[in-house]
Amino acid sequence: MQTRTDSTRTSPVQAAREPAEPPRPNAAEPATGFQLGIDSFVETSFDPRKRAAMSEADRVRDLLEEIELADQVGLDVFGIGEHHRREYVSSAPAVILAAAAARTRRIRLTSAVTVLSSDDPVRVFQDFATLDLISQGRAEMIVGRGSFIESFPLFGYELENYETLFTEKLELLLRIRDQAEVRWSGTHRASLSGQGVYPRPLQRPLPIRIGVGGTPASVIRAGTLGLPLVIAIIGGEPHRFRPLADLYREAGRRAGHPPERLSVGIHSHGYVAETSERAAEELFPSYFDAFSVIGRERGWGPTTRAQFDAARSPLGALLVGDPETVAEKMLREHQVLGGLSRITLLLNGGAIPHRQVMRAIELLGTRVAPLVKAAWTATPPGEAREDLSDAMTQRKGTGNREPGKSNP
Amino acid sequence: MQTRTDSTRTSPVQAAREPAEPPRPNAAEPATGFQLGIDSFVETSFDPRKRAAMSEADRVRDLLEEIELADQVGLDVFGIGEHHRREYVSSAPAVILAAAAARTRRIRLTSAVTVLSSDDPVRVFQDFATLDLISQGRAEMIVGRGSFIESFPLFGYELENYETLFTEKLELLLRIRDQAEVRWSGTHRASLSGQGVYPRPLQRPLPIRIGVGGTPASVIRAGTLGLPLVIAIIGGEPHRFRPLADLYREAGRRAGHPPERLSVGIHSHGYVAETSERAAEELFPSYFDAFSVIGRERGWGPTTRAQFDAARSPLGALLVGDPETVAEKMLREHQVLGGLSRITLLLNGGAIPHRQVMRAIELLGTRVAPLVKAAWTATPPGEAREDLSDAMTQRKGTGNREPGKSNP
Repeated sequence: MQTRTDSTRTSPVQAAREPAEPPRPNAAEPATGFQLGIDSFVETSFDPRKRAAMSEADRVRDLLEEIELADQVGLDVFGIGEHHRREYVSSAPAVILAAAAARTRRIRLTSAVTVLSSDDPVRVFQDFATLDLISQGRAEMIVGRGSFIESFPLFGYELENYETLFTEKLELLLRIRDQAEVRWSGTHRASLSGQGVYPRPLQRPLPIRIGVGGTPASVIRAGTLGLPLVIAIIGGEPHRFRPLADLYREAGRRAGHPPERLSVGIHSHGYVAETSERAAEELFPSYFDAFSVIGRERGWGPTTRAQFDAARSPLGALLVGDPETVAEKMLREHQVLGGLSRITLLLNGGAIPHRQVMRAIELLGTRVAPLVKAAWTATPPGEAREDLSDAMTQRKGTGNREPGKSNP
Repeated sequence: MQTRTDSTRTSPVQAAREPAEPPRPNAAEPATGFQLGIDSFVETSFDPRKRAAMSEADRVRDLLEEIELADQVGLDVFGIGEHHRREYVSSAPAVILAAAAARTRRIRLTSAVTVLSSDDPVRVFQDFATLDLISQGRAEMIVGRGSFIESFPLFGYELENYETLFTEKLELLLRIRDQAEVRWSGTHRASLSGQGVYPRPLQRPLPIRIGVGGTPASVIRAGTLGLPLVIAIIGGEPHRFRPLADLYREAGRRAGHPPERLSVGIHSHGYVAETSERAAEELFPSYFDAFSVIGRERGWGPTTRAQFDAARSPLGALLVGDPETVAEKMLREHQVLGGLSRITLLLNGGAIPHRQVMRAIELLGTRVAPLVKAAWTATPPGEAREDLSDAMTQRKGTGNREPGKSNP
């Protein structure tokens, strides 16, 4: 259990009466090693004409096949984002993940992210504890403030409380994780005076990560609480996120958490095909649609093919290309960010034909993961060596192309 | 779409601008015919010693096998109740049902009930619309006020608002079912000014039933809204519920709903084994534990074997016995209640060994359902004949025991 320095209103006497549930030694996820995974927002399409041609039920059927394949090819984790927009079939991640749990054996299943600010920590915990029982101990949550704001008016919250909502609800969620019978009071939700929150999960503690965009205060909070961090790198150059990762590690160190508890993961747009050219051609149309619509809402400039190509160049944020190119970029991110424990790719699945997404998943599991994991094994978190890409290049043996030449 | 006479605050002009989603002709459940199903609250045990011996994860694994078998033997519906107590693993029915959806092909999946008074209709609809997509159109909801009260303090609601909470939330739920972009205001939840509720279900409309205990106002509401009714008959003699069923049908008729929309179903405790004696022996211990604990909380008298035996006699509420006995009692309920569309049995599953529950499910699908459905087919809803039990007895041919002698 992590030390919490700033999030308890329980007196020491109460704490003594209500001991935290003991951890189960055999349950929690492995603390070390690299995990490669996929995230989905269960996109249909941002182009209304294409969306109209696609049944949401078919999209969900395809998604479940994609998660099954991800499990079969040995990927480590599948995440479902929470969105409340017409273009996404993912307002209820735990419900989708439960269906996936019933069809898979090994892969871990997580929200990516749960928009905790506009949800009730009691319901969220109940949903994911139930998922944990269904999956026999494979459930996780990534909680965050979300990158969209639709959920605030939908559930009756004020955007002006953006910060306090998250702080308070995270505090309650962690309290529920520690103890079945909860005493808590705050300003954005009814108090609890010992009510029980059931069922209890199989994993103790149920893994909870903090998902962040780029807000320093958010990573300091995650570090202080000793919770694993997931940084969404949607644009910009990944190496620019190094100060954020260091700020997290430093906050965790100051709060007294051991380094192995302070893991950093990356969520990133990505796509894999047999050749980098083909990966780009298959991904670009849906990438263009999504970024054009969202960019218009947020006042970004127009999305262009030149921007896309820059983002998939060696220093860019997109993990797009053939398996070697994508593995190299992952190792570069591991290196420049001071050590990563997990990378997950958002494939823009629904707007790309199912057959192509299945091929991308297969390549991620059978080609990308072995390359990355072999190089990673020699590298404890926080000690990423400068020569990782070289190490991987040597392992590849007689590759059929020179590294660094995969992108046009 | 049903006519709603008392539940709209939308002006005619607004209604004209925002047409309800058109029904899909191929989706909704069959309007006629008899459905036989099972309900579960995902009980572990009310006896703390027995409960400690059972892993909740094992209970969920067993439950999913039970639902798979129910699907395979042709049962029509499986329901999961919502409870927020240590003895039940069912605070999140939609999550459990989603796992079941991924493992089944034909069986319909419903909450039984969703405690709507203490939940948010937006989240509930999102969960079950997602379930509907996962199950390819097999999701349903039964909404009610619940038979326990734990959820009220847990989610910050006052019991003194028991009635208005349900009325208001049902109104909103039906509004969301009709239209993706919702305009609504009330007193127990933030207003909606056109926010979209996604995803949309495959079935249009998504089936919503009203679950009631015995409150006349509740059945009048269900009839007036033209929603199917489910009566929980936990004790007492089923024929005493006839006035309630008639009150429902009359309210529906007055509101202008055609008779085929006004279906009545029954939720009942029950259990089946090869002989009635064996069924009683296998069920009684868990029945005793549950009714003793709940009875103490509610001030009922002590639970005795004599009461149990009276309840499983021909006029009692328990549908417990060998297949012929249970089929006869179902047909008798159909008769005395003026026609039923569905009967579901709560098997007290978790507190009975999994192997025995599986056998009960198999008997329900292979022995009870054929007997009941054969007799039912000749009987349009609302016109149950007096001689139904006789008709079934004749169909049985050379049964190995005399009807009416199955119970000691």
